[in-house]
Amino acid sequence: MHRLKPEFTVEIHTIVGAGNFREGEAVAMIDYGVAPENLDAGAVVLPGTTGEVAAIVQCCRAHGVPLVTHGGRTGLVGGGMSKSGELVLSTARLNRILHLCPVERVVVVEAGVTLQALQVAAAEHRLEPGIDLPSRGSATIGGMTSTNAGGISAFRSGVMRHRILGLEAVLADGSVYSDLTRVVKNAAGYDLKHLFVGAEGTLGVITRIAVKLEPQPLATATVLFGLASVDAALETVRRGLDAEYGHLRAAEAVWHSYFRLTSSHHHWSAADYATDHPVNLLMTLGGADETALQSELARIYEDVVAVHPDTSAVIAFSGAQEADLWRLREDTDLIYRQHPGAPSYDVSIPLSQVASYLERCLTDLKAIDAALDPYVFGHLADGNLHIVLNSTGGDIPAEKARAVEEAIYRGIGELGGSFSAEHGIGAKRVAPLSALSNPAKLALMHRIKGALDAPALLNPGKVLGAGRI
Amino acid sequence: MHRLKPEFTVEIHTIVGAGNFREGEAVAMIDYGVAPENLDAGAVVLPGTTGEVAAIVQCCRAHGVPLVTHGGRTGLVGGGMSKSGELVLSTARLNRILHLCPVERVVVVEAGVTLQALQVAAAEHRLEPGIDLPSRGSATIGGMTSTNAGGISAFRSGVMRHRILGLEAVLADGSVYSDLTRVVKNAAGYDLKHLFVGAEGTLGVITRIAVKLEPQPLATATVLFGLASVDAALETVRRGLDAEYGHLRAAEAVWHSYFRLTSSHHHWSAADYATDHPVNLLMTLGGADETALQSELARIYEDVVAVHPDTSAVIAFSGAQEADLWRLREDTDLIYRQHPGAPSYDVSIPLSQVASYLERCLTDLKAIDAALDPYVFGHLADGNLHIVLNSTGGDIPAEKARAVEEAIYRGIGELGGSFSAEHGIGAKRVAPLSALSNPAKLALMHRIKGALDAPALLNPGKVLGAGRI
Repeated sequence: MHRLKPEFTVEIHTIVGAGNFREGEAVAMIDYGVAPENLDAGAVVLPGTTGEVAAIVQCCRAHGVPLVTHGGRTGLVGGGMSKSGELVLSTARLNRILHLCPVERVVVVEAGVTLQALQVAAAEHRLEPGIDLPSRGSATIGGMTSTNAGGISAFRSGVMRHRILGLEAVLADGSVYSDLTRVVKNAAGYDLKHLFVGAEGTLGVITRIAVKLEPQPLATATVLFGLASVDAALETVRRGLDAEYGHLRAAEAVWHSYFRLTSSHHHWSAADYATDHPVNLLMTLGGADETALQSELARIYEDVVAVHPDTSAVIAFSGAQEADLWRLREDTDLIYRQHPGAPSYDVSIPLSQVASYLERCLTDLKAIDAALDPYVFGHLADGNLHIVLNSTGGDIPAEKARAVEEAIYRGIGELGGSFSAEHGIGAKRVAPLSALSNPAKLALMHRIKGALDAPALLNPGKVLGAGRI
Repeated sequence: MHRLKPEFTVEIHTIVGAGNFREGEAVAMIDYGVAPENLDAGAVVLPGTTGEVAAIVQCCRAHGVPLVTHGGRTGLVGGGMSKSGELVLSTARLNRILHLCPVERVVVVEAGVTLQALQVAAAEHRLEPGIDLPSRGSATIGGMTSTNAGGISAFRSGVMRHRILGLEAVLADGSVYSDLTRVVKNAAGYDLKHLFVGAEGTLGVITRIAVKLEPQPLATATVLFGLASVDAALETVRRGLDAEYGHLRAAEAVWHSYFRLTSSHHHWSAADYATDHPVNLLMTLGGADETALQSELARIYEDVVAVHPDTSAVIAFSGAQEADLWRLREDTDLIYRQHPGAPSYDVSIPLSQVASYLERCLTDLKAIDAALDPYVFGHLADGNLHIVLNSTGGDIPAEKARAVEEAIYRGIGELGGSFSAEHGIGAKRVAPLSALSNPAKLALMHRIKGALDAPALLNPGKVLGAGRI
């Protein structure tokens, strides 16, 4: 095992003080999050200020020690994996909300603040960050910025990149890039904060972020539609966007295999709702008055059923019913309990292509193995589909795994979509990124990495892989 | 005069064909737009395809000829200025709408398509681009991308950067960066399209853009509020954001001197509306039903007047009345007719700081010259203020001009604002950018320019100036 040199660890210790640098057994007590490999470095530093982060980066640079930055360790593609000889920088102590202004509708946080902590603080002023994820309790704003997180509101409020007004980051040379503006309009030179958003810690260490907030609605109402086709579901989404009262807050689709799994596990059923619809669509409206929102959903249903008579609908008439409907979409753990380590994919498809893409893809998967009947669900209003195989991860031979990946990613670039919608590249999607990117884009990514971090000290091997920089 | 060499112009001629390369008198017939200096190069090439753009860039590189890209020539800070020895590339022939899909709510255009042409095409499907500007008839999507245009919808739908899903650009080495995705979620590596957005043609030549569209409302309604203070106006904006019916589409503020100018010129008055309010606020709601929107505006007025009794309001009850109200905000030509070349500034201030910033700034301007009573108006919901001096441009001594600029820009960075909100840097704001930017940000801008365009062929002297790259 490659250990860090004592003269390096002494320096790190001096920077952050006792208790904020951990090695050996003290690391084993830290929650590794999604992947045990996250903490394989066996050395974790917890700075408490931007100045300490800058000093750590300088120290790493002087000693040639690679640095892997960690937020909530909820990443799904190995962006936080580390190995011995590297140092993990945890943002757990950078957890202060520095500024929260209801007049500006802006919050400035340190990178380690969790999404939930931000949501709770904003809700006191009836505000919300315009982005939401199931892992809100652990995911940090720094991590969500580094991975350009998505979630259910992206069709309406954009992805993380679109929520960020300002940003502070420590560069690979230890200098501090400080651009903590709190305004949406800023045309003062290149907007380089966008380099750090979605770079997964390979171009800088994000320390502070200014996030735009939106007013929270006073009430919400939710409906579940059972529909005969993707096209009918997309038409229904447009009706939701055109709501005459309230506004569309979510439009999540659940295809039949996944719906069967969650509805049967939770013994969910409703009168007049057939459970064998090809597509189920969960829509939530926000607005001022709950009853008026429920009436609007009923009106939309009448419009839909006039065109697509084989449509079912259940409107939630209580918070408990609303939660029951959402659980049919969000209880993805059920998949992994049944198929531990099931390979999952996260693609974005332009809406006009979703139906034909899925038909082609599922046919190809069946041809690889007739038993493959993936769970499909996702954010229909923005074309982001999650496809999870009904297979236990370790059981799939490498050749078959490659064929499956090829079937899922085939043609996505030409269609105008993305093979990695919201999970990022991390360690696990390096090969497809290299294979599927426009050559000029890939070359430019390497040139940018070279310009910002020539020694490749920041999260080495991630995104661009271990090759040329 | 530095002329282009014949062997160069012959090559350019060969690339684009007869009629698409213009020199001398043929250039004098082209509309120079906002600044006569835009066409000082005296040589304009009009490519018709991305391939031709790439060939032109390669030819410029081989011959060391700098290239200045032009869209609609509506830029206000000299980003399109050129000089002899340079070649102007006009995107006027890159004017095709390549893809417009109502299911996807996405349009893909060539760079030279005007905003208005895009709006007209989108409106056929009751869609809109989520961005609007008075110069819509000339401003091109390529130019708006290059300058990261703002406008009146930014508080709601973001600036141009937030509307762009995909982008194609020719790099300084002639290679084509192609990332024409049509999805909002794309976490497949560094999102380098954001380098070209707002770079004002210094990092690449943008050739195609995919833009996200939003549903157009069926109806709108507009109100003009007369308010006693900025704080009262900001409270009113929040009430607009919290509308119980419909949604806020615009919240434009007009301070008293500018209001006096436009209202007296247009002989505008309304019963019970005092024309001497410190701040006037124009708000437009969008929704399904015009009468219901007007009632909602009346309800908001009642809520405002209960807290701020000295508030006036006029609700427009016809399209003509709505246009009359908007003219009080948009007829900025009146300023320049009275004060030709009046210096104008374009700042963004965090909303909580707008009142104190303006008070401090106007006091300082009065101290410089008691006759200075600037016209102030702008996008109150996002803090973007336009400040135009009541002085003829040429009349102001250099020293006084510097004092004025200093008074307007002072402390903006520390406040969390921006000294250039939506007009960019161009040729005219290079010195303040250099003086006011975070040093690490400025250094990184130069490093990026060096990594992408080391010979500094693309729009030289703009944004970063003529100094080090």
